Amino acid sequence: MQIGILGTGMVGRALTEGFLRTGHDVSMGTRDVHETMVRQLDGTPASMAEWLAQNPSVALADFASVAGAADVVVNATNGSATLAALTVAGAANLAGKVLLDVAVPLDFSKGFPPTLTVKDTDSLGEQVQRAFPETRVVKSLNTMNASVMANPGVLPEPTTVFLSGDDPDAKATVAGLLGEFGWTDILDLGDITTARGPEMWLPLWLRVMGAVGGPMFNLRIVR
Amino acid sequence: MQIGILGTGMVGRALTEGFLRTGHDVSMGTRDVHETMVRQLDGTPASMAEWLAQNPSVALADFASVAGAADVVVNATNGSATLAALTVAGAANLAGKVLLDVAVPLDFSKGFPPTLTVKDTDSLGEQVQRAFPETRVVKSLNTMNASVMANPGVLPEPTTVFLSGDDPDAKATVAGLLGEFGWTDILDLGDITTARGPEMWLPLWLRVMGAVGGPMFNLRIVR
Repeated sequence: MQIGILGTGMVGRALTEGFLRTGHDVSMGTRDVHETMVRQLDGTPASMAEWLAQNPSVALADFASVAGAADVVVNATNGSATLAALTVAGAANLAGKVLLDVAVPLDFSKGFPPTLTVKDTDSLGEQVQRAFPETRVVKSLNTMNASVMANPGVLPEPTTVFLSGDDPDAKATVAGLLGEFGWTDILDLGDITTARGPEMWLPLWLRVMGAVGGPMFNLRIVR
Repeated sequence: MQIGILGTGMVGRALTEGFLRTGHDVSMGTRDVHETMVRQLDGTPASMAEWLAQNPSVALADFASVAGAADVVVNATNGSATLAALTVAGAANLAGKVLLDVAVPLDFSKGFPPTLTVKDTDSLGEQVQRAFPETRVVKSLNTMNASVMANPGVLPEPTTVFLSGDDPDAKATVAGLLGEFGWTDILDLGDITTARGPEMWLPLWLRVMGAVGGPMFNLRIVR
């Protein structure tokens, strides 16, 4: 499958590595390819140029080209930039596509702890689905660290990942991709409005990270 | 220990049974003892009169009497009624006491899904701590069904319970009571502001309940 990853940060890179490992073709989209290639991101271990040198099969291109060529598009942009990035990617390029939305609507502008830019009566997943009604949005993977998303087996026990979306076929496609990553407990919460729950998990996730001393954890729904 | 439970609903009853089982003396507080004794609560399997007949060691009294006599006070009222109930209980009766706050700030007035009355930049736990600065508030047990709170062993695997509060000794007292219930993974998130996270878990909890078909589940933090 041709996977188009929008976003070149930690999440985009981790998911690209996961999709390559599971046999897919991956291209990565960014707003400005030249700027991305020369930038050293704060907190990112390798520059994009270095990372691409280690992953030579990955093509880096603009948002619209990547979205247009993909079978499945992954929104791995910052939540605060998601709607703008998808607008640049283009509604026509996204129409009919499965859009796996892994973004978290966190606002770090006032420091720690961040707040949510949308919550409770709406969600980023719903905002994306409303803005791109011809796209089949599936919210998933937004409840754990990037390194766990594509490698759930790094944790000592199976954990749980959620799906929210209006299109059953799109959720089945995403569930198949998650299964290839190693996810065994994939819990379908319902339509895209259920994305409110997983997005509102973030404040607790951040506090658990503080309590356990790092991001290498996830929740398991024991029932 | 003398435990004073404020609230006579499902949560108050389940916790009372748990504290009785673990060897404590329990009294239950309500706004109007007569009204509580004659009322048949919607969705509650037994009237309070029937339930008390099955638990004859439990004294039912007004909020203030119960709070004043207790070593540890438990807020098991509805989140929307919590501040009013605690005001009736009386700041003097609560001063210096450990107050275990298990309430959830859900607003069901507009139907399902409920919304949160407070979130993201504040929490019910913080509101209670601010309103009763001489009381040592510990938020805990608000992340699972009442029947799991006092009996974590009903689930097939150990799960996680959180603590939030400003007073380390108060958290240690609550952790001791939780250990008696059978909790083994008690995660201290930090000060009372960390209650925002566990309170914002509720929207996801409700959707998971729908997905797994009932309330008998809890999260385990796998790390």
